[in-house]
Amino acid sequence: MKSYPITKSRRVRSTPFTSRIEKQGVTAYTVYNHMLLPAAFGSIEDSCEHLKKDVQVWDVAAERQVEIFGEDAANLVQLMTCRDLSKSKIGRCYYCPIIDDNGNLVNDPVILKLAENRWWISIADSDVIFFAKGLAAGNNFKVEIFEPNVDIIAIQGPKSFALMEKVFGKKIIELKFFGFDYFDFKGTKHLIARSGWSKQGGFEIYIENTESGLDLYDYFFEIGKEFNLKPGCPNLIERIESGLLSYGNDFDNNDNPFQCGFEKYVNLDSEVTFLGKEKLKKIKKEGIKRKLMGVHLETDKISLTKSLKITDNEGNLMGELRSACYSPHFKEVIGIAMINEPYCKSSVKGKLKIDGNSVSVKVCDLPFI
Amino acid sequence: MKSYPITKSRRVRSTPFTSRIEKQGVTAYTVYNHMLLPAAFGSIEDSCEHLKKDVQVWDVAAERQVEIFGEDAANLVQLMTCRDLSKSKIGRCYYCPIIDDNGNLVNDPVILKLAENRWWISIADSDVIFFAKGLAAGNNFKVEIFEPNVDIIAIQGPKSFALMEKVFGKKIIELKFFGFDYFDFKGTKHLIARSGWSKQGGFEIYIENTESGLDLYDYFFEIGKEFNLKPGCPNLIERIESGLLSYGNDFDNNDNPFQCGFEKYVNLDSEVTFLGKEKLKKIKKEGIKRKLMGVHLETDKISLTKSLKITDNEGNLMGELRSACYSPHFKEVIGIAMINEPYCKSSVKGKLKIDGNSVSVKVCDLPFI
Repeated sequence: MKSYPITKSRRVRSTPFTSRIEKQGVTAYTVYNHMLLPAAFGSIEDSCEHLKKDVQVWDVAAERQVEIFGEDAANLVQLMTCRDLSKSKIGRCYYCPIIDDNGNLVNDPVILKLAENRWWISIADSDVIFFAKGLAAGNNFKVEIFEPNVDIIAIQGPKSFALMEKVFGKKIIELKFFGFDYFDFKGTKHLIARSGWSKQGGFEIYIENTESGLDLYDYFFEIGKEFNLKPGCPNLIERIESGLLSYGNDFDNNDNPFQCGFEKYVNLDSEVTFLGKEKLKKIKKEGIKRKLMGVHLETDKISLTKSLKITDNEGNLMGELRSACYSPHFKEVIGIAMINEPYCKSSVKGKLKIDGNSVSVKVCDLPFI
Repeated sequence: MKSYPITKSRRVRSTPFTSRIEKQGVTAYTVYNHMLLPAAFGSIEDSCEHLKKDVQVWDVAAERQVEIFGEDAANLVQLMTCRDLSKSKIGRCYYCPIIDDNGNLVNDPVILKLAENRWWISIADSDVIFFAKGLAAGNNFKVEIFEPNVDIIAIQGPKSFALMEKVFGKKIIELKFFGFDYFDFKGTKHLIARSGWSKQGGFEIYIENTESGLDLYDYFFEIGKEFNLKPGCPNLIERIESGLLSYGNDFDNNDNPFQCGFEKYVNLDSEVTFLGKEKLKKIKKEGIKRKLMGVHLETDKISLTKSLKITDNEGNLMGELRSACYSPHFKEVIGIAMINEPYCKSSVKGKLKIDGNSVSVKVCDLPFI
């Protein structure tokens, strides 16, 4: 498939690390939150294997923060998500579907509670800042809403723990999953969370002091050889195998949280007020008509650039394939698809067309691994 | 400068015309509203010259629509913009800065009034849909807000009138600037506006019937030879020369409309209620401290990938260059820069560094031509 260069501009923002990853061999970009997000360093198969075995540093500055600060901050944050945050704690991260008035998804960020009146919404690819600003203005909330100067680098992979311990000491290993705290690097404090967009373990460093962050980035590569540290990026194969969903790819503002398997983050019986609550109750009562499922495809290659229709053997529409990759682990193509009733159950078979060829599809549960 | 391929996916949406423009020789993309926007068909200098002389068809489906429909539609639309729409007419387009609670810009769309209770916001690159949804929910407005299935193709250039007359007949030539109406193509009605993101004249076709739109696209190229019709895209050189500003490049949510030269669209003395009105009154009273200006650079090449600092000859910060290109017309590089007081007036001189070389800068008024 022919590839096309991306035209850079101020609108498609570079990150503080862009010049570094270009020296280190980034080979493709995507755009995420109006910013460059590295999409490959050579073969994504090789990169996936390395991520599962060793450790990588990722420039994921494109995971932008929306800071909500002020008297009504907690109210506004709660209004935006169907997850009950009434018992949330300072120093913890929460995966929170953001929901609109129709009960549909706006984003699926990780929300960090920095203080009772100060939160960071670490967003997937949509402008949550304007949703927050609209809601705050409409409700006369006393809050300030802005994008702080924060650029994330992620340290991912099984050896991330050893690497991080070498830099930040033993204390960082004690950080619990989805906990965060401040850690010192050469006299500068950095907010570090045990989190990241892979299932291989790791950390995300929320860099506010850019200069120190660049220093830290370079320092990782100075001392990282013993861990076989390499630059990397969110890996399509690893994230599909692990069932990590992607806003815009697997679901969007036309889908609701029940269709996406987010039931455990939808707290309809709670006391808290959030947008779309009544709508979600109605959706739950009536039941959903389609659901995100895994699919196995009987083929050994795919380069999915948009969704593809899946049909049953009589040609009836079963759903659409939204993400896919060749998985070296499964030795076939796997994908994530929105599958309609009555097809959305494990082992149902169908087909789709790739470059004019018919390929067999088998539905399965998520996650794959 | 090394170029990097863009990784396509469902999240970075293709348009109905993507496969066509790829056959026709598109050579670079950017991403705009989570969608592919062609950025070049070979040399942008050649393309600029052609656009000024003949006629081009552009795939600008990335100019997405936000439809506001229902009882409170007009109130919501007015709440979002500082332009007084109380005397707006059905069948007209309005260039409207969208303003947040702080008086800063959220977007600078063209708004189409389809009916008293039905509007399309034809957006620049930010998710206005979530701003509208937040405001509507917060204000309990009775509206439906969604992205309709509309993909725009633009017909731009001096020969666009002859081309469009050949397809749609004499009536289309009578359409006034920023007027729109419905025109028939082989039995399908298409909304067509006399508008577009160039100063070379032309039309934008808002395609709701995708099949007919694809037919129409192909038909243009079937009959377009006599007008020397070519595929094209918004042209960096033409738009800078003409002073057409770009949200995300020249200004963003950190800038207010007075800083961007939008005074004529800020109706502070009107009776209408809009967000940020009091804040804008305050900003106007206090005066602005920086302003978008043109700049001439004493160099014959640039490839701007992010903003660059401009300093005076003593090294004091004058502002930042946000967009730039080599203009064959001026035979030097021209650009758009946010210039601080007291430097933001014509003929002030400064300098900036490009690839380690110092280049002289001269401030001028916008537009260039």
